[in-house]
Amino acid sequence: MFETRDGEVSLPADPATLPPDAHLVFIGRIRSPWTRREDCPKNIGAARDTGQAATLEIDAPYRPGLAGLSGFSHVVVLTWLHFSPRTLIVQKPRHATQPKGVFALRSPARPNPIGLHIVRLTGIDEAAGLLSLEAIDVLDGTPVIDLKPYFASVDAVPDAARPEKGR
Amino acid sequence: MFETRDGEVSLPADPATLPPDAHLVFIGRIRSPWTRREDCPKNIGAARDTGQAATLEIDAPYRPGLAGLSGFSHVVVLTWLHFSPRTLIVQKPRHATQPKGVFALRSPARPNPIGLHIVRLTGIDEAAGLLSLEAIDVLDGTPVIDLKPYFASVDAVPDAARPEKGR
Repeated sequence: MFETRDGEVSLPADPATLPPDAHLVFIGRIRSPWTRREDCPKNIGAARDTGQAATLEIDAPYRPGLAGLSGFSHVVVLTWLHFSPRTLIVQKPRHATQPKGVFALRSPARPNPIGLHIVRLTGIDEAAGLLSLEAIDVLDGTPVIDLKPYFASVDAVPDAARPEKGR
Repeated sequence: MFETRDGEVSLPADPATLPPDAHLVFIGRIRSPWTRREDCPKNIGAARDTGQAATLEIDAPYRPGLAGLSGFSHVVVLTWLHFSPRTLIVQKPRHATQPKGVFALRSPARPNPIGLHIVRLTGIDEAAGLLSLEAIDVLDGTPVIDLKPYFASVDAVPDAARPEKGR
């Protein structure tokens, strides 16, 4: 391992160059207003605050999988953050006081660069494979790898605790 | 496409045999009490009801990524449900009144068989790469592909709506 920036640690081997343990297919992509990384909101709250909507396009073979999704107010979108480096196992976010492990962060840079987004579904056209989303915090063209209904009964933990600031 | 069971629909091509769009590395695995599919709880609520805990083992190269996770009460675990078929795009769950698209279900059988689990973290040994989980609804040995902190501020939507029963 070698240090990369002020306390950051890289993996000994880049997961992108390791033999794959399993493979993904892209099932669609996000259409968002963000085409440059510097414009892209850093989290879903910031995306919502812009007031800018987004669209999720599902590719033709997978569109029958949308049947029954209408009526859910929220969905879980899993994306493949294809521009992210996969080696940074300890990272120092700009505003953090100290470096943190990637599994304590929602950083896009992770061994498998999967983005998890809980988003409000504002419309759906099953035949065209188009989902209207209130907002999302990824670049235009980001591949989608899964889409799930959000169930408050198992997915909402409003009293979940996190470490105090500064830790 | 061909029908498989009472309203079910399969994809024209099995994603498992398509050229990969991206590749995954396994970063660890779940140790759970469930070694036979018929014993494995069907969802996280049922897993909790058993009162049986589980362990998440992170492989050595990825253990530095755990720094800072202590203090979170809940984590998001993403698993690779390696026994699941990937072709069933419309499914008829045993107790459903009609077939539904896979994206309206939390079925393990999906184009990319990724499991999403919001679990309570009851202990952590960063050096050994061991996380104690209150419970989880996957078979012993299930590969883990990502681990994220759960943030109530963005991940908890307690008033999220779903279609009425029977739809």
